Amino acid sequence: MSLTRRLFGGAAPTALRATSLGYLGPEETWSWLLFGKNTQVRKLLTAAAVVICGAMATGAQAQATGDLGLVVERATGSLLVVDQSERASLGRIEGLGDLSHASLVYSPDERFAYVFGRDGGLTKVDILERRVVKRVMQAGNSIGGAISDDGRYVAVSNYDPGGVRVFDAGTLEMVADIPTGSKTIGLVDIPGTRFVFSLWDAGETWIADLSDVPPQITKITGMGKNPYDALVTGDGRTYIVGLFGEDHLTALDLWQESPAPRTILPGYAEGREGLPVYKMPHLEGWALAGTDFVLPAMGQHEVLWVDARTLDETGRTPTHGQPVFAMSRPDGRQVWVNFAHPLNDTIQVIDTLTKQIIHEFKPGPGVLHMEFTPRGREVWVSVRDVGRVMVYDTETFEKLSEIAAESPSGIFFTARAHKTGL
Amino acid sequence: MSLTRRLFGGAAPTALRATSLGYLGPEETWSWLLFGKNTQVRKLLTAAAVVICGAMATGAQAQATGDLGLVVERATGSLLVVDQSERASLGRIEGLGDLSHASLVYSPDERFAYVFGRDGGLTKVDILERRVVKRVMQAGNSIGGAISDDGRYVAVSNYDPGGVRVFDAGTLEMVADIPTGSKTIGLVDIPGTRFVFSLWDAGETWIADLSDVPPQITKITGMGKNPYDALVTGDGRTYIVGLFGEDHLTALDLWQESPAPRTILPGYAEGREGLPVYKMPHLEGWALAGTDFVLPAMGQHEVLWVDARTLDETGRTPTHGQPVFAMSRPDGRQVWVNFAHPLNDTIQVIDTLTKQIIHEFKPGPGVLHMEFTPRGREVWVSVRDVGRVMVYDTETFEKLSEIAAESPSGIFFTARAHKTGL
Repeated sequence: MSLTRRLFGGAAPTALRATSLGYLGPEETWSWLLFGKNTQVRKLLTAAAVVICGAMATGAQAQATGDLGLVVERATGSLLVVDQSERASLGRIEGLGDLSHASLVYSPDERFAYVFGRDGGLTKVDILERRVVKRVMQAGNSIGGAISDDGRYVAVSNYDPGGVRVFDAGTLEMVADIPTGSKTIGLVDIPGTRFVFSLWDAGETWIADLSDVPPQITKITGMGKNPYDALVTGDGRTYIVGLFGEDHLTALDLWQESPAPRTILPGYAEGREGLPVYKMPHLEGWALAGTDFVLPAMGQHEVLWVDARTLDETGRTPTHGQPVFAMSRPDGRQVWVNFAHPLNDTIQVIDTLTKQIIHEFKPGPGVLHMEFTPRGREVWVSVRDVGRVMVYDTETFEKLSEIAAESPSGIFFTARAHKTGL
Repeated sequence: MSLTRRLFGGAAPTALRATSLGYLGPEETWSWLLFGKNTQVRKLLTAAAVVICGAMATGAQAQATGDLGLVVERATGSLLVVDQSERASLGRIEGLGDLSHASLVYSPDERFAYVFGRDGGLTKVDILERRVVKRVMQAGNSIGGAISDDGRYVAVSNYDPGGVRVFDAGTLEMVADIPTGSKTIGLVDIPGTRFVFSLWDAGETWIADLSDVPPQITKITGMGKNPYDALVTGDGRTYIVGLFGEDHLTALDLWQESPAPRTILPGYAEGREGLPVYKMPHLEGWALAGTDFVLPAMGQHEVLWVDARTLDETGRTPTHGQPVFAMSRPDGRQVWVNFAHPLNDTIQVIDTLTKQIIHEFKPGPGVLHMEFTPRGREVWVSVRDVGRVMVYDTETFEKLSEIAAESPSGIFFTARAHKTGL
């Protein structure tokens, strides 16, 4: 799609395709109808229309949003707006503060993104207008957020002050403050206008039901020592907490009336010395690969396979380094893994059926994140230290494109708007 | 979102919010800068700009597309463009020919829909411009289609002449003709630019790989007598064929090098007289409900539960009538079922954990289709004979809205662009 089509959606009158005052084409028809033979007035009118409509084009973009995305530029506090179909960047949104370890979610219509900065900033951006709509400093130190299934509420989990704050997605006015007395992590949305999150200090998981305000809170104790991150399955049913201080994970079946903690993968590192952890693995990257979950092991050079139904371990695959993200291609046939410093220049690809590594390559230093196109045909990879997002075909592993970006980290495609728990 | 915001994306200069020539506000600034104190010229310029930019607004819409959808109006050969967030219709696209039993798929950017009419018409429509882009009569009688995972190709399965034809998604030029010598049904897309479809007369399933043109065809024989419809699981792995002449279904594991037909649910109606089939059940409505598939039984008043991993039967739920669609809410917690004539005024809702019916209601005569919002919060229901699409909350079952439509049948939300096999 050409830039002109992108700006005007292919529907603009010919006049709008002019980029200088020197082009006076069919648009003169308008002024002719209104002002007859007064040539000077007609030309002036036409020129003015081009200027004004041109100004309009710098505002909202007449384009579909299904293949767009945002790339977090952590060093500059900006977002790069990208287009999957064109494998190109369309523009930049600036002024988002500290975007180290930032993440974001989308409104149901894919127009707005809510960006969660490490500095406690919550920023609403308009992708079509490419601008910050509103920005609030909602806490001193925050760690991720979620949007409710009805699109009404955005929730943020905070370290300081510890807890969750919930905001109106339209105005960013705070609608609920849920202090926990603990650093709060692993915040996800589940069906029924509900959020689930965990308490690092207290070893608890809370469910906040926002069907009414103030929210109704359900507290589940005994989750384990120091939950550091969590995931929920795509159906919103199984919530799994990673524990920093223990040699297992804890799962909850959220479909039960009273969900009870269940230990899974007990002693997964038993008898082996834990390696120093340079980078906490992420659990959000999870997806179902065939019949199993794939989880990055903490402090080990391996990924763990877990039967999605029984939650029993089904295998391990040794890897190049300590995995940070172990992400399943949307069809589950492949798992892509990146690694912690100092081995973060490498990606390994694992085949789900055989659990064997089928491909390994080095995109460059500082591979921070990977995002699949929604049907898995391509994967986009942030390579921070070379200032590039690389695009690969997941079948051939061929590199399809490179896109310049300032210290890129998280990549988020708009199709996330339609998923639970991302 | 107001209509003005919808049209201009909230970014238009104030001038563009004027709806008549009588409003001459801040936009005068532009003309003042250009033409100084010549009041008459300034006013004329402003008026012209309003007219021209107003005309632009009747073309492409500056709006996000993530919460849009299309409703097939079968009697009038038109499509209603709908907005999930507003629970409203935005406009109509006309001139699509015979839309009885029509279905459609979306381009990856959610801008274009490809509509498959029963009359063999393939129509490409632009949702933002709300118009037909191109229409070709590609066969005499067709029955559904699919779009490849890379968005490049649209395929249509035909009864007459029997086979599949593949078109360039941009131009609708035919790129491959695959005659089968049989009525062809159950066409789906799977990863790797591939399509899968089945032959009613020959009892075969074919896989067409469009990585190169002409396509490479793999033929699998022995699927059973008269396949009438098929589904593929969301991961593109398991293809299940319904058989009109036999008392079982047949499954393929497409992840295997040489997929072999496997009989599932053998003798599911054994010892019971088949009822007259007024309406063939649809398998496309399938989704994973918890750990099981749910399938409408052919010629019986029940739905069948099948373990998604072993493909063994796990239960049956007696229903109000012969099920047409048994559709899982996106989180899998509920299954919504509608029924064949003459019981097609009713919907039943089944709880996945208990397999029990938890809700039954009568939206009105001619309940033809149901579509969930992507995260399952609402369901939209076509009620043909009252000319309404009804919107319900899936938690409270409360009716949230009614939208007028001409004999509505299929409802298709744009989030389908990001799914395999729909």
